[in-house]
Amino acid sequence: MAIKTLGAKAAAALDLELMSTGAFSIDQLMELAGLSVSQAVYRFQPPSQGRRVLVACGPGNNGGDGLVAARHLHHYGYSPAVFYPKRSKNDLYQRLAKQLEDLEVPFVDDFFFSGEVREPFPAVIQALQETKLPVMSVDAPSSWDIENGPPQSGLGSSFMPAALVSLTAPKPLVQHFKGRHFVGGRFVSPSMAKKYNFEVPEYEGIDQVVEVGSTGQKL
Amino acid sequence: MAIKTLGAKAAAALDLELMSTGAFSIDQLMELAGLSVSQAVYRFQPPSQGRRVLVACGPGNNGGDGLVAARHLHHYGYSPAVFYPKRSKNDLYQRLAKQLEDLEVPFVDDFFFSGEVREPFPAVIQALQETKLPVMSVDAPSSWDIENGPPQSGLGSSFMPAALVSLTAPKPLVQHFKGRHFVGGRFVSPSMAKKYNFEVPEYEGIDQVVEVGSTGQKL
Repeated sequence: MAIKTLGAKAAAALDLELMSTGAFSIDQLMELAGLSVSQAVYRFQPPSQGRRVLVACGPGNNGGDGLVAARHLHHYGYSPAVFYPKRSKNDLYQRLAKQLEDLEVPFVDDFFFSGEVREPFPAVIQALQETKLPVMSVDAPSSWDIENGPPQSGLGSSFMPAALVSLTAPKPLVQHFKGRHFVGGRFVSPSMAKKYNFEVPEYEGIDQVVEVGSTGQKL
Repeated sequence: MAIKTLGAKAAAALDLELMSTGAFSIDQLMELAGLSVSQAVYRFQPPSQGRRVLVACGPGNNGGDGLVAARHLHHYGYSPAVFYPKRSKNDLYQRLAKQLEDLEVPFVDDFFFSGEVREPFPAVIQALQETKLPVMSVDAPSSWDIENGPPQSGLGSSFMPAALVSLTAPKPLVQHFKGRHFVGGRFVSPSMAKKYNFEVPEYEGIDQVVEVGSTGQKL
């Protein structure tokens, strides 16, 4: 039995449906998504194993999830730093950044590399690929295609994060992923999951994430 | 050492500050507040001890927190029912109610009493006071004054919930409360708490609530 996944178009449609007929606001969904990510980090590397976390945020929705996660990680006792080179002008993202500034969470300009941050993303992918530090990606590892996984060759083709958090449902790229896999986003109704042909995983207790194996069953 | 509390005016000012300079949206704060309440319920009565929970929501902000809590309780495996006799016309509250309807969480018209629901609150307070079921209140037990606690006489004067969840900080009425006391709302910065002269409690792990004793220390 293969893990059930949600393609790019279906994932976008689900998000739209959650925010229209589902009546969720983007603030609410992003808070819950970022909370899931923070809990996955806690499972993957509890603060007793190291408090320093670099949260790398792109300009899109997953970047917003990262800003939320960084705030929760701060409250859990981590010392997060945020790398957020292309800041969104969107009001929500600006507010999420302000919430971090009020907690004195540092925003850093360099990733693991030195040099100008003019076109940072290739250098970031290079650094992600080469670092010995454990990397956790959200939804899609940087440079990976949501359907087809890592690029066939060149930059990112050997990038394999140690852990992945799939929000609401795994994306098709998980077929190519080898590492610890968490699913988060405990707000999808069974009927919505059925409509989009994926499974709501078996969360435990009050957890907002669950670690799953290669067929999607709870580990 | 007495527990540090936040009076009615200060609590309102803190809420306003969180949403202005603090840059939080009401959606975000209500989601986090309701999540705290749901986690307190889980600690107070895990689903293994009984899955049926009646969530009684007034028309104000704590009612909104209750709607959020009911959703999380559903996802934790409880069978919540919601008593929400005076529905707010506010868009956020309507959306929170819709999210529950989509999960088929029932809205019930009767509390523990029978008869017309025309002026339900006195009857609700009567029922809360008389029931043998354990009651958990949020911020202020129904009928209690936020500063002075239970009414001196008459309806509500002998109402003592088994548990209380104080959101962001305990209110002065906790001096009159005897029961299990949880504090939730893990989003207040230490500098904000200092400004309002209360303590951020010592949360553990990823918890959004902490149980505290009579002086506010973690139990």
